[in-house]
Amino acid sequence: MNLGDIYKPVQGDLEKVERSLEEIADSEFQLLAQLLTYTLKNGGKRIRPALTLLSAKFYGYDLNTLIPIAMAIELLHTATLVHDDIVDNSPVRRGRPTVSCAWGENRALLLGDYLFAKAGSLAASTGNLRVIKLFSQTLMTISGGELRQTGVTFDLKRAREHYFDWISAKTACLFSAATESGAILSQAPEEAIDAMRDYGHNLGMGFQIVDDVLDFVGEEDELGKPVGSDLREGAVTLPSILFAKSNPKDNLIQAVIEKRDAESVVLAVEKIRDSPVIGECLALASDFCFRARRAVEKLPDNSARQSLLELAAYIIERRK
Amino acid sequence: MNLGDIYKPVQGDLEKVERSLEEIADSEFQLLAQLLTYTLKNGGKRIRPALTLLSAKFYGYDLNTLIPIAMAIELLHTATLVHDDIVDNSPVRRGRPTVSCAWGENRALLLGDYLFAKAGSLAASTGNLRVIKLFSQTLMTISGGELRQTGVTFDLKRAREHYFDWISAKTACLFSAATESGAILSQAPEEAIDAMRDYGHNLGMGFQIVDDVLDFVGEEDELGKPVGSDLREGAVTLPSILFAKSNPKDNLIQAVIEKRDAESVVLAVEKIRDSPVIGECLALASDFCFRARRAVEKLPDNSARQSLLELAAYIIERRK
Repeated sequence: MNLGDIYKPVQGDLEKVERSLEEIADSEFQLLAQLLTYTLKNGGKRIRPALTLLSAKFYGYDLNTLIPIAMAIELLHTATLVHDDIVDNSPVRRGRPTVSCAWGENRALLLGDYLFAKAGSLAASTGNLRVIKLFSQTLMTISGGELRQTGVTFDLKRAREHYFDWISAKTACLFSAATESGAILSQAPEEAIDAMRDYGHNLGMGFQIVDDVLDFVGEEDELGKPVGSDLREGAVTLPSILFAKSNPKDNLIQAVIEKRDAESVVLAVEKIRDSPVIGECLALASDFCFRARRAVEKLPDNSARQSLLELAAYIIERRK
Repeated sequence: MNLGDIYKPVQGDLEKVERSLEEIADSEFQLLAQLLTYTLKNGGKRIRPALTLLSAKFYGYDLNTLIPIAMAIELLHTATLVHDDIVDNSPVRRGRPTVSCAWGENRALLLGDYLFAKAGSLAASTGNLRVIKLFSQTLMTISGGELRQTGVTFDLKRAREHYFDWISAKTACLFSAATESGAILSQAPEEAIDAMRDYGHNLGMGFQIVDDVLDFVGEEDELGKPVGSDLREGAVTLPSILFAKSNPKDNLIQAVIEKRDAESVVLAVEKIRDSPVIGECLALASDFCFRARRAVEKLPDNSARQSLLELAAYIIERRK
């Protein structure tokens, strides 16, 4: 099972999204064009716009509003990545220097702002106020969540709960905005909109947990960044939390948080990779994907539903 | 003539905007509440929301849409200031440490994003698609303009033209969005909307030129930041450009651009302050304000029009 097969019911529409994203990059002054090309032709999986397109396939949809919102969702995602890479001081993403690393933090900051604006403008072009409001609410949740995260000091007792709040704000929120906006724009009935939102949220939770697992067990050339990047950047994710919980006498994670030196990070990655917590994390991710599948089973049976079900399986099995 | 008198026709509405801005700060988690309080209770002049409110006073307006857009315009302005202070590495604004200086660049970046989102959400709450599109277009122009500015190397031949493009994107654009959105939401006829946009643009151009003059001739305690901050941060504004043009043998400005040391900045500020270019700049600012007044004279005569005319005079005379 690969993404190409899963995207099949919306392949043509997704290509339109891709071409329209390329056109954005063509239409501006030179520096901006360079930055946009670099950022938008990035080899991303395009899961979020595919979700929007698939979610609209159950009722009557209009490509004139659907393509712009799918683009807006992808641009919002891209903008948050560009800003996150400044905040996390990340050198590499998808195998290439980050914008802030290649062009400097100031340009990365302003590019992110421009992408937010372009995304907002595309959302506005749908003419659908409910979608526009959902869109700005989503950015508030994402930036508010990241801000909250900067104030969190590691507290093992509350770490797991914090982690779920955090990934809900940073990832699941945008996944559910992607599916919900597709449902709204296809005139789906309220129960179907609820189901699609529910699907998106749970898929996003599962997706992020797997992302955080891959940061321990993945291969650098598949991930496009070094293994252990999260710990190196100070992000204590689910594998570390579960490891600390099940090894209360081992101060491995505490040492990484305090020192953040290469040696402690390498040691922590090795220990966690070979521990049972990886399996526990994947079981939790599977739980979320199970809930996602259950939500989507309420929808009419068609090839898009099949794709959404397969996507929920794919994100657990993926290697990158 | 002071702002309090000029704002009189919309005093009650402006107080509502102020209170509603305070309420935003009250409603979130602690770190965000602190940051919002610090940023929004900032002693700003509130010129932009006042412009929106005054611009709506000529036809039929509804406070339920007008207060949100006035707030949105002020929040968008605030967000760009928070991000600009990161880009320019500014230590002080309005007599206090900048957010990036007091809380760090990461929090400032995320706070700015949050403010953009909140602003977008308020703009969306007007339910007026034309205003929502104007709003996102404005943020694109502002961030695109700043991005362009990061790629500009000083070229005396094109410096004046560049400067006008730059301040049009960074300041006049938001002033005209403020007046245009007030006009749109008050159901003004198209010619009146054009006139209000024209007024806002020209007022903004004049306002920014005076701002740039005050950076040379103002008093630190009135400005809320040290004199010469622009040159120190590498911003070559109209007074420096006109000085370089009228003193082709003096390499004062070139020296500041190359060295950016305290000594060259102090020398440049002294020389420019005592030169005729200050008068030339103010004459250009007056020209823009004259055009602003001419635009607004096309509107029905009432107390709001009187205020807009007085505002165009005020911004030339102001000391801060």
